[in-house]
Formats: sequence, C-alpha cells, structure tokens
Amino acid sequence: MNQVKPQKPLLYLDDLAVGQRFESEKRTVSLSEMLDFAKRFDPQPFHLDEMAAKESLFKNLVASGWYTAAITMSLLVTCGLPFAGGIIGSGGDIRWPLPVRPDDVLRVVSEIVEVRPSSSKPDRGYVVVKSETLNQQDQVVQILTARLVAERRRVFGD
Amino acid sequence: MNQVKPQKPLLYLDDLAVGQRFESEKRTVSLSEMLDFAKRFDPQPFHLDEMAAKESLFKNLVASGWYTAAITMSLLVTCGLPFAGGIIGSGGDIRWPLPVRPDDVLRVVSEIVEVRPSSSKPDRGYVVVKSETLNQQDQVVQILTARLVAERRRVFGD
Repeated sequence: MNQVKPQKPLLYLDDLAVGQRFESEKRTVSLSEMLDFAKRFDPQPFHLDEMAAKESLFKNLVASGWYTAAITMSLLVTCGLPFAGGIIGSGGDIRWPLPVRPDDVLRVVSEIVEVRPSSSKPDRGYVVVKSETLNQQDQVVQILTARLVAERRRVFGD
Repeated sequence: MNQVKPQKPLLYLDDLAVGQRFESEKRTVSLSEMLDFAKRFDPQPFHLDEMAAKESLFKNLVASGWYTAAITMSLLVTCGLPFAGGIIGSGGDIRWPLPVRPDDVLRVVSEIVEVRPSSSKPDRGYVVVKSETLNQQDQVVQILTARLVAERRRVFGD
C-alpha cells in the first residue's frame, strides 16, 4: 500500500485548464489483496478461483472492476491528481475495456476536460476529469470520466 | 461479510424484461471496514478521521464513494440480481447524491432498463440495469446504471 504523502504544488480550480494532464506513480496488483477484495465485495468464481475462472467468459482469474476502480482512486489520491481540497466526486462514467490480472502494474493518466466555477458558491467549482488506467503493456483497463468539486484559491481579505 | 449463497431461480437473458425489479437484502456499514477501505484505497481526511472531517465539505466522517460502490456490488452479487452467468459489467454511470456514514443500513433496488440479444454471439446479450442504493431512511445514496452481459438459456440440442 502506498503511503499518503503530500503532493506539491496543490492545485485550486483557478490553476486548472482544459487539456492539462497528470500522471500517477505505479501500483502493482497483489493477488492476495485482489482476492480479499473479491471475497468481501464481489465474490464471483472468475474473481476468486483460477480453475473456475477457466470455465468463465474471462478464461482466467480477473480482478473485480470495482477493485480496479479502487486502485485507480488510490493512485489519484496519493499521487495522480493534486487537487488542494482533495478528490471529491459526485459521480461519473466508468468503463472497463479490458480486465486486470494479478501482478499487473497500473498507473493513471488524467486529463482535465472541463472547468467551471460554481454560479452560486464562490469558494468552489466543478471539474470534469478523464482518467485512464493503464497496465504495464500500455493497455487501457479503465476509463473514468469523473465529475469533481474543486476549491477556489482564497483571496487575501476574503 | 455476507456469505455467498446460490440464488434461485437464476435468470437468463431470455427471462429478463424491461421494468422487472429486484431488491437485495440489507448490509450495515461497519466503521472498521469503512476505515480499512479508506486507508487502502481512498486515504483522504474526510474518510479517515472524524475531527478532520468536521473541517471538510462533508462536516462528518463519510464513506468513500468507491466503498459504497463495493458494498452495492456485494449486495447485487449475493442477493440483489440473480443472473445465471453472474454479474459481468462493461461499465456504467455512477452517481453519489448523498454520502454514506458509519452504521448506515444499505440495500439495493434494481430495475431492468434495456434487454438486447447480441447480434453476433448467440450465447449472450446485453442488459442495462439501474440500481439504486438506499439507506435506512430510504434516501438514495448511489445510482448506478450499469451495462451488463447476460447469458442466454441453452436450448436442448445446441
């Protein structure tokens, strides 16, 4: 598990622009954590058992898409998207074009798609970020287009 | 953790129709599991620390949206959506209108929105399912509109 470490510089809504890109560090998918996640949250044969997975549509043991989403979030939070107020999402669109397998090495590349100050709340705005999660072969295993809240920089005297 | 138990009757694409509804059992959000999830996958102050959360946009400790998604998946897989081939999604749209808090009691109500046999693969089809995750006050905490693959019933002689 990656440690939480402060990222610098932290970005406010005012610092963001469409087209900006951010790349996270890497995280290796551990078989034991992948299985633990599946047992707790997605106990289906193709996520739990190599032999059973061979009979499935996937042909091999694969990670739950929600585990891929969780790893992606861990990469965004710790090193992938240095928003000053943290990463607070109201939702988004998620796709899993390819499955994740044990020992895959994942990283996340994010791009700012939209930046919009709130019309009613002067301390914040809304950002749309497209985050692609890639494996060690540069294959896209997840595309998350998320709607996030971002803090505005406080002006002296506010 | 809920145990995996077979659900009957298991449904194939051929059994599904737009408007069918399914309701899961309930699962209580455990503070310790919620914190463990946040530490591993979403280590932000408002998911980890009650005092820090008071300073945040949320005002109180809240679950990671991805933990809400994971609990929702556990309810769908174990008791919420009895698809014969399991719950295999290619993606979907996810929204979190309200945060989940420790000790919330969640359940999932799902409705079939679209059913479409594959034009190229006779053994399967595609289903869109809207799953609302509700808390003990019947407030919607998550709306997931998922694109799933469903197996077709095998006809004798196939």
